[in-house]
Amino acid sequence: MAKKKLNVAMIGIGFMGRAHSNALLQVNRYFDTGFDLRMKVVCGRELARTEAFAARWGWEDVATHWEEVVGRKDVDAVDIVLPNALHAPVAIAAAQAGKIVLCEKPLAMNAAESRAMVEAAAKVPTLVWFNYRRVPAVLLAKKLIEEGRVGHVYHYRAKYLQSWGVEAPDSWRFRASEAGSGALGDLLAHSVDLAMLLNGDVQEVTSIQKTFSREREVDDAVAVLARFANGSVGTLEATRFASGRLNGNTFEINGAKGALRFDLEDMNVLEFFDNTEGPETSGWRRIYVTDAAHPQVGKFWPPGHIVGYEHTFIITLAEFLDALAAGNEFHPNFEDGDRVQQVLDSVSRSALARAWQSPGGAPDPLPVD
Amino acid sequence: MAKKKLNVAMIGIGFMGRAHSNALLQVNRYFDTGFDLRMKVVCGRELARTEAFAARWGWEDVATHWEEVVGRKDVDAVDIVLPNALHAPVAIAAAQAGKIVLCEKPLAMNAAESRAMVEAAAKVPTLVWFNYRRVPAVLLAKKLIEEGRVGHVYHYRAKYLQSWGVEAPDSWRFRASEAGSGALGDLLAHSVDLAMLLNGDVQEVTSIQKTFSREREVDDAVAVLARFANGSVGTLEATRFASGRLNGNTFEINGAKGALRFDLEDMNVLEFFDNTEGPETSGWRRIYVTDAAHPQVGKFWPPGHIVGYEHTFIITLAEFLDALAAGNEFHPNFEDGDRVQQVLDSVSRSALARAWQSPGGAPDPLPVD
Amino acid sequence: MAKKKLNVAMIGIGFMGRAHSNALLQVNRYFDTGFDLRMKVVCGRELARTEAFAARWGWEDVATHWEEVVGRKDVDAVDIVLPNALHAPVAIAAAQAGKIVLCEKPLAMNAAESRAMVEAAAKVPTLVWFNYRRVPAVLLAKKLIEEGRVGHVYHYRAKYLQSWGVEAPDSWRFRASEAGSGALGDLLAHSVDLAMLLNGDVQEVTSIQKTFSREREVDDAVAVLARFANGSVGTLEATRFASGRLNGNTFEINGAKGALRFDLEDMNVLEFFDNTEGPETSGWRRIYVTDAAHPQVGKFWPPGHIVGYEHTFIITLAEFLDALAAGNEFHPNFEDGDRVQQVLDSVSRSALARAWQSPGGAPDPLPVD
Amino acid sequence: MAKKKLNVAMIGIGFMGRAHSNALLQVNRYFDTGFDLRMKVVCGRELARTEAFAARWGWEDVATHWEEVVGRKDVDAVDIVLPNALHAPVAIAAAQAGKIVLCEKPLAMNAAESRAMVEAAAKVPTLVWFNYRRVPAVLLAKKLIEEGRVGHVYHYRAKYLQSWGVEAPDSWRFRASEAGSGALGDLLAHSVDLAMLLNGDVQEVTSIQKTFSREREVDDAVAVLARFANGSVGTLEATRFASGRLNGNTFEINGAKGALRFDLEDMNVLEFFDNTEGPETSGWRRIYVTDAAHPQVGKFWPPGHIVGYEHTFIITLAEFLDALAAGNEFHPNFEDGDRVQQVLDSVSRSALARAWQSPGGAPDPLPVD
Repeated sequence: MAKKKLNVAMIGIGFMGRAHSNALLQVNRYFDTGFDLRMKVVCGRELARTEAFAARWGWEDVATHWEEVVGRKDVDAVDIVLPNALHAPVAIAAAQAGKIVLCEKPLAMNAAESRAMVEAAAKVPTLVWFNYRRVPAVLLAKKLIEEGRVGHVYHYRAKYLQSWGVEAPDSWRFRASEAGSGALGDLLAHSVDLAMLLNGDVQEVTSIQKTFSREREVDDAVAVLARFANGSVGTLEATRFASGRLNGNTFEINGAKGALRFDLEDMNVLEFFDNTEGPETSGWRRIYVTDAAHPQVGKFWPPGHIVGYEHTFIITLAEFLDALAAGNEFHPNFEDGDRVQQVLDSVSRSALARAWQSPGGAPDPLPVD
Repeated sequence: MAKKKLNVAMIGIGFMGRAHSNALLQVNRYFDTGFDLRMKVVCGRELARTEAFAARWGWEDVATHWEEVVGRKDVDAVDIVLPNALHAPVAIAAAQAGKIVLCEKPLAMNAAESRAMVEAAAKVPTLVWFNYRRVPAVLLAKKLIEEGRVGHVYHYRAKYLQSWGVEAPDSWRFRASEAGSGALGDLLAHSVDLAMLLNGDVQEVTSIQKTFSREREVDDAVAVLARFANGSVGTLEATRFASGRLNGNTFEINGAKGALRFDLEDMNVLEFFDNTEGPETSGWRRIYVTDAAHPQVGKFWPPGHIVGYEHTFIITLAEFLDALAAGNEFHPNFEDGDRVQQVLDSVSRSALARAWQSPGGAPDPLPVD
Repeated sequence: MAKKKLNVAMIGIGFMGRAHSNALLQVNRYFDTGFDLRMKVVCGRELARTEAFAARWGWEDVATHWEEVVGRKDVDAVDIVLPNALHAPVAIAAAQAGKIVLCEKPLAMNAAESRAMVEAAAKVPTLVWFNYRRVPAVLLAKKLIEEGRVGHVYHYRAKYLQSWGVEAPDSWRFRASEAGSGALGDLLAHSVDLAMLLNGDVQEVTSIQKTFSREREVDDAVAVLARFANGSVGTLEATRFASGRLNGNTFEINGAKGALRFDLEDMNVLEFFDNTEGPETSGWRRIYVTDAAHPQVGKFWPPGHIVGYEHTFIITLAEFLDALAAGNEFHPNFEDGDRVQQVLDSVSRSALARAWQSPGGAPDPLPVD
Repeated sequence: MAKKKLNVAMIGIGFMGRAHSNALLQVNRYFDTGFDLRMKVVCGRELARTEAFAARWGWEDVATHWEEVVGRKDVDAVDIVLPNALHAPVAIAAAQAGKIVLCEKPLAMNAAESRAMVEAAAKVPTLVWFNYRRVPAVLLAKKLIEEGRVGHVYHYRAKYLQSWGVEAPDSWRFRASEAGSGALGDLLAHSVDLAMLLNGDVQEVTSIQKTFSREREVDDAVAVLARFANGSVGTLEATRFASGRLNGNTFEINGAKGALRFDLEDMNVLEFFDNTEGPETSGWRRIYVTDAAHPQVGKFWPPGHIVGYEHTFIITLAEFLDALAAGNEFHPNFEDGDRVQQVLDSVSRSALARAWQSPGGAPDPLPVD
């Protein structure tokens, strides 16, 4: 069967641009996507650096203005790997030009923007690069939850801990005009997305947003209490000031039947505690998620041969292309990204107001438990 | 040198009564306290059970009404291991009778009580059994902090996670009239005490208190955001509904120079990350706190031979007796216990008010960070 | 029911003397042994030190020559905590005087001695202090093996790794005349005892014995290949030169149905891998062996409250007294200690001969697998 | 600067063929090798499968007989990923045709073959795919050893534990004529290569080789005692019957100044214990080897973003091409592979003879330590 051509444009050539290019190159080695992906054009601000990037990663053409790219006839899909402030304008333009739109997270600077993006993209397939949904261990967590192995949930606990903020040089990530927020959009966005995937809607939040470095315009850290719609108590935290933690994206779920733990620093492992075992032999199991029986793992290497960071993008892209081929809805799409954005906005509002806030609206007082 | 006699009365014969009796029996085997401890009288509600307890643990006499014990002339010190509701009346009576008073944690049902206890005991030596201060790994953490190995603190994160609440039979611990609170006084009290020991005063808190079980009168879980006086962001949590966690009393401190982690389930270990090492060889170190170079460890066994739960009581008692002999102030005393109680009260108030609250007073609004 | 008196004499006042005294003091606090233990007399070489020891630990009387003690009429049981060279003479004298004999490990300097000890003690109850058999996690391992959870065994792997030899001061432990051997009798003896407990008889061995320090007369390290009677392949190793390891007494058993791992440095945990689970959710389980459902644990503290090194002696003593009361055979007794000694001797012979050797006899050539 | 063309032929299309193809595709994305690699022709036994493989991985041409490929004029380098029995004939033919030769491990069926391969390839650059030398954590271990952080070595301990043998279907890996050996060549070869890299020459060995499954012709497990030329005691073990272990390629080195531990199942971590720290703060450090300061890691992703199994091949290829460009000798080359083979042969001889054997010759009796 002949593969369908899909011409991709990528806007942005930073670290994430490398991860996306790699995924585009690798996806058809491991998966049967049904698409003949063409890396048509890559767009960066400086021509020389963009040409070097294109040469290394196999992009056919280069551009230096995104406006020239998003409407090109020979482009089917636009992939956005830009500072957050540019997500909305580029995505909206691309969507209005009828392109498939893939966008880095967080989807937008705020919920007003993300809402506008959802509307603009109502008729095109979309993707938000919450790549950690596709860590095989996270896919397994989702599966075990759906199978009832955790049961009624009491606690959802997530942290995204990094340390580079303590001594970081200046970057667009510290400027409010480009990043919108700091730890909130950069790290907590991932935690909120996973929380909603695994534990459902967030009902209300209260929070601290903290900037430790005087010269920075955005939050270095954020800590959140949350009530979930399923009745569970949530704590979420993200920081760039957690000495000792490089990429500690963790969660723990405690339910009536079992519990799950995950740490991105040990990303090929999911820990599972089965309450139904009885005390003599129950214990936290380190499930080494590298077996063909585990979600998506069989596409890569034999049991015991681990995958790394970049594979989360490959799996995400593969599942997006499968959905595209089948005409199915893909998640996380712009609507999912918008829902995350509404939670993030409520976190910011609660920090400012020093009060509980609900996503998507005015504070919605709940009865005290 | 002849040892000074010290006659002890203990009120209560539950699980904690065993731990205290053991400490009284063992302290002079491992430490040179200068006191000849006499286990004079133990008091329980039922005579037969109390006699059996006394026989097993070597108490000379038994009683069934605490009122008869606290004023006995042949008693120098009264040790209280009763449900929380009885702490204040017994401690106040004992203090008024001029006795040394040792009391289980939490010190009281609320800060009004704990304040009254402090006042009543102004002239007698006191102790609150926050035994986890004397885990050797915690003593080492305190020492490293004082030596500047952690530096300016950004984050203090504490959890006390247990799971027995999911399927527990009825107990005084679930009745408001006897326990006052649930996870708050039982577990979070320990976390707050350690937090204040290691990270200083708590400035304000906001929280969730949650009762998952309909038939219970007290909180099954509590989650807290805190601002510390040193500028660090705190998250504290305690629960009896964390499946998979038996006694997960943990903390993590992230500072400019280093970080520390502790988990009571692995109590002979302190984890330390030294930021000053440089990235090539830095990493979380599992310090196996069993060496004579470590605080109090040399009193027990050679390096590599671990101590257990009960030793925290032995060390606490030894240091109390040392302070008593030297005429020094011991910590944690009733004043420390009262300060913890004030934080716990502010946590309860904040949960009820759905708002930030300060310990020891009305909400004290801080500028947003 | 009145308890039966049992008068104990202990010969030796070193570090192990403390551990035994503690067990004698504590056993009736936690267990119902049926015996009223009297700590009658303790014997050390120097009177002043022995008196101080007796005062601290509650021994009624002191002596400075073991010959005066082993035959005392007011002594029912003799506990030997002396350098290895004295085990045989003291034990034989005590047994000939009709005393119950408890002896530290290794039972003897060599199998000739241990055989003589078995013969001399044929009519009295005996115990060898292989205390690590009674770590609750090891008791659980034994139970799971007996229940078939490991199945047919392929591999038994044991190491006893310590590091203190690198910089140790002189000690009787380094003199051939007093210790007999180094790592072999001190550490490998424990590993061999556990191996025979958990995996059955050793058929033949080949080995390296190595002395790294020129000034020492005994082996600093020993490494062994073994064939077990059950067909499994064994590797055993013990050393005082393993930097980083304080008390790393470990084993791993791989069988057709499951696998077990243990490390004394984490002694409240047993790791279990259940092959029958299927690849999706199987993983090494950290069984936190602190539940009342676990062997002997319920005698001490509630779930999640760990025991330490000293408790292995308490449990050993309790089970010995239970066997004594019931008239049952206790293990490990002198016969068990002798069997271990025969394996140790064959290890020494194989190192010297650079050839495979069988315990208990001349080399017994096996067909190559 | 124009890149030099290098045309590659690969013989074999199994699981390892995928790993090599991936490395050829990826190496220039992350490294600047100076070579324009052309994936010229891939050779498999079945045409259809070979064509599908070529299409997926981007090979320009296909072949079904290796004899037609090794001498092709448009081929500069031949990469051999065949069952062990074919390594020697293909490598010798390719070398005789003047090609660069890359060969999977173990280099040969035995040392006679590997010696012939070394001779045939004396004038061409060669590589043996001992890919685990290039795990970044292993590169770091090598660096720390060279810097003296471990000091004089007492112990080298290596295990390569897998479990798939318990229930594996038939495969060439179980047939003597194709594989030559089982765990020995498949797993222990890696351990021996790392041992010689990190700890130098092996002087003599004694061993057990064991076949648990009656229907198999090769060893399921092998256990070895070794003396190294540096005076350290070695234990090495490899098995396909270690339930619970998927890819447990581990080593531990204990030296006078420090110790190192590695486990391929946690391949982005190196554990280091620094003896020079003093007992108060020393502990095993988990060095998370993902920083730009670590060897080769900076070529991939930012700190905290792990690499996986496939990257070991990419790094190996990159370093080989660098050496090729610079005219430097690369390791491991065929001479290194031959040295490993000699150790493996001595292991087999020792198992058969039930006696110590030396690599490369007749048994060379050493004085007993």
